[in-house]
Amino acid sequence: MNNKIPYKIYLKENEIPTQWYNVRADMKNKPAPLLNPGTLEPMTFDELRPVFCDELVKQELDDTTPYFDIPDEIVDFYKMYRPSPLVRAYFLEKELDTPAKIYYKFEGNNTSGSHKLNSAIAQAYYAKKQGLKGVTTETGAGQWGTALSMACSYFDLDCIVYMVKCSYEQKPFRREVMRTYGASVTPSPSDTTNVGKKILEEFPGTTGSLGCAISEAVEAATSKEGYRYVLGSVLSQVLLHQSIIGLESKIALDKYDIKPDMIIGCAGGGSNLGGLISPFMGEKLRGEADYQFIAAEPASCPSLTRGVYAYDFCDTGMVCPLAKMYTLGSGFIPSANHAGGLRYHGMSSVLSQLYDDKLIEARSVEQTNVFAAAQRFARVEGILPAPESSHAISVAIDEALKCKETGEEKTILFGLTGTGYFDMVAYGAYNDGTMSDYIPTDEELQKGFDSLPNVNL
Amino acid sequence: MNNKIPYKIYLKENEIPTQWYNVRADMKNKPAPLLNPGTLEPMTFDELRPVFCDELVKQELDDTTPYFDIPDEIVDFYKMYRPSPLVRAYFLEKELDTPAKIYYKFEGNNTSGSHKLNSAIAQAYYAKKQGLKGVTTETGAGQWGTALSMACSYFDLDCIVYMVKCSYEQKPFRREVMRTYGASVTPSPSDTTNVGKKILEEFPGTTGSLGCAISEAVEAATSKEGYRYVLGSVLSQVLLHQSIIGLESKIALDKYDIKPDMIIGCAGGGSNLGGLISPFMGEKLRGEADYQFIAAEPASCPSLTRGVYAYDFCDTGMVCPLAKMYTLGSGFIPSANHAGGLRYHGMSSVLSQLYDDKLIEARSVEQTNVFAAAQRFARVEGILPAPESSHAISVAIDEALKCKETGEEKTILFGLTGTGYFDMVAYGAYNDGTMSDYIPTDEELQKGFDSLPNVNL
Repeated sequence: MNNKIPYKIYLKENEIPTQWYNVRADMKNKPAPLLNPGTLEPMTFDELRPVFCDELVKQELDDTTPYFDIPDEIVDFYKMYRPSPLVRAYFLEKELDTPAKIYYKFEGNNTSGSHKLNSAIAQAYYAKKQGLKGVTTETGAGQWGTALSMACSYFDLDCIVYMVKCSYEQKPFRREVMRTYGASVTPSPSDTTNVGKKILEEFPGTTGSLGCAISEAVEAATSKEGYRYVLGSVLSQVLLHQSIIGLESKIALDKYDIKPDMIIGCAGGGSNLGGLISPFMGEKLRGEADYQFIAAEPASCPSLTRGVYAYDFCDTGMVCPLAKMYTLGSGFIPSANHAGGLRYHGMSSVLSQLYDDKLIEARSVEQTNVFAAAQRFARVEGILPAPESSHAISVAIDEALKCKETGEEKTILFGLTGTGYFDMVAYGAYNDGTMSDYIPTDEELQKGFDSLPNVNL
Repeated sequence: MNNKIPYKIYLKENEIPTQWYNVRADMKNKPAPLLNPGTLEPMTFDELRPVFCDELVKQELDDTTPYFDIPDEIVDFYKMYRPSPLVRAYFLEKELDTPAKIYYKFEGNNTSGSHKLNSAIAQAYYAKKQGLKGVTTETGAGQWGTALSMACSYFDLDCIVYMVKCSYEQKPFRREVMRTYGASVTPSPSDTTNVGKKILEEFPGTTGSLGCAISEAVEAATSKEGYRYVLGSVLSQVLLHQSIIGLESKIALDKYDIKPDMIIGCAGGGSNLGGLISPFMGEKLRGEADYQFIAAEPASCPSLTRGVYAYDFCDTGMVCPLAKMYTLGSGFIPSANHAGGLRYHGMSSVLSQLYDDKLIEARSVEQTNVFAAAQRFARVEGILPAPESSHAISVAIDEALKCKETGEEKTILFGLTGTGYFDMVAYGAYNDGTMSDYIPTDEELQKGFDSLPNVNL
């Protein structure tokens, strides 16, 4: 395995990008704007200000500025855990006996265990700069909540997390990590908000959903003085911050004149995939280069592969603006047997538009295949991957095995978003052989589509 | 924080040391030899062969060869997760407002979550090279067992782990990580060994101890064809492998002409402290440089600060050779309220001799102080440390605060051995304020000393 390309390509600290890249600036078909659910008019700066920090609203609404300076304070924080390594998967290549060259960008080497910290620190920074007391948010698997609690601790901000009840109960350790960083964590739905009470009344015994926790967090933010709501995925501002993943990847690849043929990322709300592909997609949009982009999503929550492209509610309580996206309907709740994250009913507007424009492909993966890929990867590459990330691993392995058949020496880049240390219940089920797959029937999907608002033509 | 010394000093892959350093070669007073408990004569190569792999026995018995080549296969594996970063703790320095310059060598960026993998892969390699079928071992907190299961998976070796029963029950997730890597994990004491059965008979309902699990693992190895026993700490061979920590640290520091004034490491059996300080101690022993070395140990299991220097059993079942070490007696079992690892009754013979020669100091730390230091560190440096590692953090913070008082700009290096992702029960107790301290009384210690063998003069 003596190759001039090392196992891990690390950038130097002074090579950390100092600007985020806004892929919307290079999109001919811009993502559809957020709509005011009352007027069905595009949301304005003033309408969004009560919910989000001012600077983040500006980022959210700006689809023409290609680059945003990263404030020095954020770059300093990035140095705590970035640059993240770009890894040549020599061990996996050998295991697969493939002529493909596989690289992955590993974002799990920080306590939040994922890429989520990249946007959390940005959002906390702008909240602090605006003189706010704190922020509210929701978390599902807990990675985003952990990331935000770390970021808030750093800037001494109050951090209020609504954690989907089933995760709160199944992942007490995630909760303790958040508490260690000073966050307050409430299982959702809860009786601390009107929307939570209403949902509890309507669905007693519900174990919650991301859409429901979003509603509670938004209400909590807008009903308290000095608080704003922050979100870890879906929004265009989040993709902007996450572009750091793709920008670093590109700098590392360019050092060795490596050009990926395909770029694969797991996709729930789209924060990782959007961030990873942004600068490469920019090149493609500008006609400078071509790449194949593949979104890997769970077969149990297949918003791209089986959803519709429509305006939808972002949350269950319908307190948020409407977003046009590939969606299963806010009424869709993935089966309880679904182990990993990636359970949001919709998809980033940016990625949805790119997918609709056929610039991105999508694959859905069943979870036993996901865990099989995870275990195979863990045993040769050492890293125990998050179930979310393992969707991308599964697709990458499939593509590498295709190369083995055809003899093609394709270069594959995928995003390894995080580690699975807090997902051992799911790994245990896989080890015990008790894990099963679930693919929603057309009838089940239809129920979700029935929950779509009546604003779509 | 613009300083020419970066936050993280990474070596290049080709700078990974290709030789381990054997500090015993430079010791004037050699560590006392292992004794055959029957004859009280030093254990010979032939006596140790049934227990340990041949090559590892050679390493164990060799106190004169200063350097051992690291086989290429091991260096290749090291590239999966090494070099590990040497971090300048700018954020912690700022938090403490200290003129001290603090560095830590972070060994937690791998799935085992600790430095243990450095020796696990070496021991698995020699077992494979000898044509063995598998290895047996014990694990307490689970870091060593996880590391060994990863190493065995890589070399396709059978891995049989005896896990201290209370950890097996309290840390099911560690167990699942091991199973994901293909290990078989048995709670100890168990009825799979004679010694386990005997201990169960004598102490029904016991939740086990490291000493007991060692006895079981040794019996399992010596009673099966094609198996050997491996150990994650205490032994001189382990310190040899772990010298990679200190060697890398030294190369990184030398790049920037940094000379630490003091080097701090947590100490249970001594694997991390021994590995971290080895090359620096070598310089001190050869009169080339001077450093202050501090072992940080739990107040609840204080083998250096309150133990005696004597020949003792390494295990509860008394099936192992006798080792001369600072020890609390193999009959000493730390209080159940003790949360972290570092609960072995004895200490590496190498470190014991160095301590007896007054070349190392030792401090004991109470566990609420340990967790307070852990939380303080986590909130500014991002990394959620293992309780074990946090003993070193606690002492490092104390020293940095002393510098604040005196105005001294000392350079402090400490070993951050791992992450605390599997220790959230203990963090939860700390967060809830239900964690308490425990310091054994002199009478309780005396009971342990009463278990010492009658071979000491």
